[in-house]
Amino acid sequence: MLLDLTEHCISSETMVSGGMLTVKRDQVLLPNGNTSQREYVIHPGAVVVVPVLEDGHVVLEKQFRYPLHQVFIELPAGKIDAGEDVLITGQRELLEETGYQAQQWVKLGAIHPCIGYSNEVIHVYLAYGLSKGLQQRDEDEAMEVFMLSMQELLAKVDSGEITDAKTISALFLAERYMKNHPL
Amino acid sequence: MLLDLTEHCISSETMVSGGMLTVKRDQVLLPNGNTSQREYVIHPGAVVVVPVLEDGHVVLEKQFRYPLHQVFIELPAGKIDAGEDVLITGQRELLEETGYQAQQWVKLGAIHPCIGYSNEVIHVYLAYGLSKGLQQRDEDEAMEVFMLSMQELLAKVDSGEITDAKTISALFLAERYMKNHPL
Repeated sequence: MLLDLTEHCISSETMVSGGMLTVKRDQVLLPNGNTSQREYVIHPGAVVVVPVLEDGHVVLEKQFRYPLHQVFIELPAGKIDAGEDVLITGQRELLEETGYQAQQWVKLGAIHPCIGYSNEVIHVYLAYGLSKGLQQRDEDEAMEVFMLSMQELLAKVDSGEITDAKTISALFLAERYMKNHPL
Repeated sequence: MLLDLTEHCISSETMVSGGMLTVKRDQVLLPNGNTSQREYVIHPGAVVVVPVLEDGHVVLEKQFRYPLHQVFIELPAGKIDAGEDVLITGQRELLEETGYQAQQWVKLGAIHPCIGYSNEVIHVYLAYGLSKGLQQRDEDEAMEVFMLSMQELLAKVDSGEITDAKTISALFLAERYMKNHPL
């Protein structure tokens, strides 16, 4: 038997807006006929990039993430501007954050980081053929850029030094792609 | 030079509470001396389980996720109840959602699904030595339980049928662990 799992919107209310986050609260009809409430973040979507240098090293960032009061090792990533093509977002964020431009871009897929309470989607790109461009980082964006080999990266996933789910997921997709398509 | 990336709280305000989500807005002092604003979700933390049957198949769920209006293939997971040990959360959620109990539990690590706007941490467990227990699903929790081999699962990650980042990240950790520690 194929279950109908769909929940239908009865009404929707905006709880937070105007700042960084938009938060909604919807009354919903469940498949069993009961009603319930769903609260979630409206997100414009984002792009994460796996930038691989000619020697196989990956370009990474260390960034302080306020909600967890912790510095994270992450792949370069950023939000899609209104109306922006996702490839352009990836190219813009890679240049802004790391100073690199890439000749080759391969779309590896898309991931959903937080399906319980956000509609965010993150598009995943592999970028290679890297060269230094003109870096233009936002003056309020503080981060350190550094490089690790894929082996070192995977060791940091195993050891728990890398815990950011978009970074782990994108590395997984990149590692599987590169096994079948050596750069 | 080691950069100080830390952002300091100046003041904090609760924007949403009382329902499913708690959302805060903080005024913060940036490392460069400027001030800015950070909005984020306060989350109790969660546990995701990779349940592996004796024949190597993994127990999965299909669940409708309202923020994306889409059915997702996911590993069993759930929120930590107040004061609950994370292993107990994993055991409770596995039983409630799939009807399985596990003899062996291995902590694989923890991931952060949404470091930009949530303090959520998800603890990752591998569970094996599975047997059928007494399922007690919440009547409002609609889901389908099914099984896939690790090969089938990885093929669905590659093809984009599995996009949930906690599921992809936990599979990655489990696959790497099981390579070195055959069950």
